[in-house]
Amino acid sequence: MSEHRVWTAGLVVIGDEILSGRTQDRNIAQIARWLNVQGIRLMDVRVVPDETSRIAEAVNQVRTTYDYGFTTGGIGPTHDDITVDAVAEALGVPVVIHPEARAILERYYATRGGLNEGRLRMARAPEGAELIPNPVSGAPGIRIANLFLMAGVPHITAGMLEGLSGELEGGRPLVSVTVGGFIPESEVADLLRTAERSADNVAIGSYPFFREGRVGSNFVVRSDEPEVAARVATELAQMLADAGFEAFEGGI
Amino acid sequence: MSEHRVWTAGLVVIGDEILSGRTQDRNIAQIARWLNVQGIRLMDVRVVPDETSRIAEAVNQVRTTYDYGFTTGGIGPTHDDITVDAVAEALGVPVVIHPEARAILERYYATRGGLNEGRLRMARAPEGAELIPNPVSGAPGIRIANLFLMAGVPHITAGMLEGLSGELEGGRPLVSVTVGGFIPESEVADLLRTAERSADNVAIGSYPFFREGRVGSNFVVRSDEPEVAARVATELAQMLADAGFEAFEGGI
Repeated sequence: MSEHRVWTAGLVVIGDEILSGRTQDRNIAQIARWLNVQGIRLMDVRVVPDETSRIAEAVNQVRTTYDYGFTTGGIGPTHDDITVDAVAEALGVPVVIHPEARAILERYYATRGGLNEGRLRMARAPEGAELIPNPVSGAPGIRIANLFLMAGVPHITAGMLEGLSGELEGGRPLVSVTVGGFIPESEVADLLRTAERSADNVAIGSYPFFREGRVGSNFVVRSDEPEVAARVATELAQMLADAGFEAFEGGI
Repeated sequence: MSEHRVWTAGLVVIGDEILSGRTQDRNIAQIARWLNVQGIRLMDVRVVPDETSRIAEAVNQVRTTYDYGFTTGGIGPTHDDITVDAVAEALGVPVVIHPEARAILERYYATRGGLNEGRLRMARAPEGAELIPNPVSGAPGIRIANLFLMAGVPHITAGMLEGLSGELEGGRPLVSVTVGGFIPESEVADLLRTAERSADNVAIGSYPFFREGRVGSNFVVRSDEPEVAARVATELAQMLADAGFEAFEGGI
């Protein structure tokens, strides 16, 4: 890749429901795509159970390794929501009631039965935290140091990401250009390698599929220089055509 | 949980396409659910990029921490398929051409244009490996020590898992019983905590949702003793009913 400063992030997905297979995660892809637009690369994801020590260990790893660390899950009102405690432990700070979060929750629940002990849990934050607005359901996300604590429910996280757009310092977005066709990847492996080596700051991924009873592949050319991605993709399409394959820019 | 031997697994998901958000992972949930049936608990998932050192490090962590380690992705014919090299590096063994894998690929490609250099890559394995049959597309998975290298394409991995069913030593399957309703979890947090504490070997997860314009939750009671999960779920449904909520066993 190029010599521009690359901004990086790690993600900790918190939840027994992901590890048990009960819930299909959607936050990894959602956060990855959002980070791309911010010019930040997702480098690492860890999925951990609802255990304070495991969460704290993973949070410490991502926050010290990457520019930004994200978590999803475990910031709700119930006994299994322990992300705030784990992050406070990781940072070595106490958990406090965040006055602004409390005020938000008081307003939100004023017409919904009022604050109770469970709901007040959602005002807890590591000392020194700021809030991430939640346009969907009241309880805010939490931002402290280089860490961003997001909801587990994907559409709530989507709302929080929307509010964070453009707020984080990033670099050049990674651009992807896809070339694909009903082409078995195993017939063009050499050609892909040659295309990848034709430029310094480009990577090509090969993703096979089966559709309409036929084998095919999409080849994804990635670079943080849009003109390089476009040029290598065009060259690759030509190389595939020269080898007798029908290739489509944009993929299929 | 109970005092029976608990069998554990970790999963390494390999692929730039997951970290870039291009591809929605389906293997975490698929493997988690399959492991549950084998009586093995998925404890840890790591998603890593197509970099040999990162894959090797993650593989070493899961294989030394858990009873079993699984990988998905990176066992195809192209230059970005480096899982075999990374696992060989992790285990300190050379990469060899597995004769049985080569024979399988020769048969599979006999009517599909024959073996070439790219396709022969799929016969490479860490020295000492056994094969995992692939009923879908020829190229086998790989089993070595306590590691299982599966495909990235979910329906190919499904075929490999089918063949492995009942082959791995496991313990008691974890049983889940769900109780749910149009109940805001924040109104019943205390009650959930009480229900969880009513038995030693039970955990209750709370998963909120928004549907038909209403807030609701599913409460998942998990135990490796089926009768304990059933009893606590029934008690929880009664506690919710006593608190004025309509709760449904099986969830909604």
